Amino acid sequence: MTTDSTEERVLAAVRERRERVNAALDEDLPLVEPERLWEASRYLLKAGGKRLRPTVSLLAAEAIADVPPLSVDYRAFPALDGDDIDVMAGALSLEIIQSFTLIHDDIMDDDALRRGVPAVHKAYDVDTAILAGDTLYSTAFEIMAETGAAPENGLEAMRMLANTCTRICEGQALDVEFERRTEVLPEEYLDMVESKTAVLYGDAAATPAVLLDADDEVVDALYDYGIHSGSAFQIQDDVLDLTVPSEQLGKQRGSDLVENKTTLITLHARQQGVDVDALVDAEDAESLTEAEVESAVATLNEAGSIEYAREKARSLVDQSKADLRVLPDNEARSLLEDLAEYLISRGY
Amino acid sequence: MTTDSTEERVLAAVRERRERVNAALDEDLPLVEPERLWEASRYLLKAGGKRLRPTVSLLAAEAIADVPPLSVDYRAFPALDGDDIDVMAGALSLEIIQSFTLIHDDIMDDDALRRGVPAVHKAYDVDTAILAGDTLYSTAFEIMAETGAAPENGLEAMRMLANTCTRICEGQALDVEFERRTEVLPEEYLDMVESKTAVLYGDAAATPAVLLDADDEVVDALYDYGIHSGSAFQIQDDVLDLTVPSEQLGKQRGSDLVENKTTLITLHARQQGVDVDALVDAEDAESLTEAEVESAVATLNEAGSIEYAREKARSLVDQSKADLRVLPDNEARSLLEDLAEYLISRGY
Repeated sequence: MTTDSTEERVLAAVRERRERVNAALDEDLPLVEPERLWEASRYLLKAGGKRLRPTVSLLAAEAIADVPPLSVDYRAFPALDGDDIDVMAGALSLEIIQSFTLIHDDIMDDDALRRGVPAVHKAYDVDTAILAGDTLYSTAFEIMAETGAAPENGLEAMRMLANTCTRICEGQALDVEFERRTEVLPEEYLDMVESKTAVLYGDAAATPAVLLDADDEVVDALYDYGIHSGSAFQIQDDVLDLTVPSEQLGKQRGSDLVENKTTLITLHARQQGVDVDALVDAEDAESLTEAEVESAVATLNEAGSIEYAREKARSLVDQSKADLRVLPDNEARSLLEDLAEYLISRGY
Repeated sequence: MTTDSTEERVLAAVRERRERVNAALDEDLPLVEPERLWEASRYLLKAGGKRLRPTVSLLAAEAIADVPPLSVDYRAFPALDGDDIDVMAGALSLEIIQSFTLIHDDIMDDDALRRGVPAVHKAYDVDTAILAGDTLYSTAFEIMAETGAAPENGLEAMRMLANTCTRICEGQALDVEFERRTEVLPEEYLDMVESKTAVLYGDAAATPAVLLDADDEVVDALYDYGIHSGSAFQIQDDVLDLTVPSEQLGKQRGSDLVENKTTLITLHARQQGVDVDALVDAEDAESLTEAEVESAVATLNEAGSIEYAREKARSLVDQSKADLRVLPDNEARSLLEDLAEYLISRGY
């Protein structure tokens, strides 16, 4: 379990790096002509975001290089082969890809709000949002091409980034497919979560290892760290939807049930014979009552489904911490362990 | 001027390479799971296409390596530094990017037909089309990462591809912006055409030079060849819309005028004091009469506007042929010269 001080340490580490990430974004993603296109492309990135993935990337760089956190310029980071590497560029690249996927996802899901502001296709229009996403897509690759890493490492980082993007698209397609299917196995769901969400964490953690010329063993271990902790993050999202009061959640508790969202919890419940479709009567989140949610949660608890998801997330976080053992025992590694804990201990 | 035999030579060269490009596409873009996503991603590529850009790429490889056309396996092409390079992968990558841009453009323009079949967002739906385009986008980078080129050359080809994609997005944004602006300068229009259309030709021609480790001078000259011939190609499209009978054009002659499309012809005419908005009365292409088009063309001819565009395209093709002088004088180079001529001599 995390203690308050663990959470405080993580939030401080994220906050300290967020400022640097935001400053670097302004440098590498300037507002140039055609201005409306670049304004729309930068809009969501400027609206906020915790910068969790860049934080993972920057902490991984510090853990690999075995330097005290925040002691070295991320733009001129010492590679194991002696070169100065811009690990910040790699971190930005992943954040920009994340932003592109959010913009296009919001069009597909017709979500009106994101980070407390209108989604790009609402603030502008659908055409502009498609094009803004496309612009961020290639910009991420342009930035990743300029890390100063040895060419074989730079090329490998680009190859990994491309593969990550393809897998995200496949994960999104599977998510849509699952809504139409009558049966989905928990393993299939976990595969989908890995593609849709976790590969971006895997890439964020492994990219600095590639750029800094670390051994393949380190690259693979950091990739696994991201996959395991990123998957746990998504499962925790599903748990939170049922277990946290609406005020704290920022949306109606239990809304996943109304939307018939496939989650590890509902998949497990179905396997236990629970009639998941009958858990709530409400047609939309607004008409959902607390009593209905309480009753649904009681049924899911009885079937052991919420505990099943919690245990899965717990086990994935334990795996992610074990993955890190290949790294030197230092403060940055310890923060990466804490960060994995935070992903499943957070209340919202 | 081209003769019939020039055109026949070009069409034969394109046809011969198209078969190989199509076979390679099936190898590098297989129908895998999730099947609906990959089916939608492959749909437009399978529907046809002349494969002009891959042809430019493959001819450039042959011209640089100074080998007889079709004499060497494109998958194991001799680099100047001795390695075997998959120049076909580079060519495919550009064709796949072209396909992604068509899919997203057709959503933005709400064009229902493409290559004689329903556009992807009509054959499937808008969400699937957005995601299919996004999938092709990263797949192109994945394929470009696997050419077997020296890492510094592979990385440079990836960087160029990313820059090409960003410029295409900027060109598309400018095209939309110009529709809203009251005045556009011919130079601004040519910049837009360069970004939206010609950079993809530039990249197609320069990529094999990068992969095969040619001198920077050759890389730059081939890039310029693509920029000049690709720009001429687009200008010729605008000329054809006014000068070729509807039956031959496959759409109503003069439809650009009805749609108030900004072209080099209308920009020149405006500068000469022609009231371009009053050239035709028809509100849509269906109600446009041949007499109206004839009268508009007569006005534009009087202002010298069609001739101005023709001369600009002619001059760009001459430049593109001069760009090639850096290459050895061989049959592939001669075919690239013919191909540039064909781009402005074609009747549709």
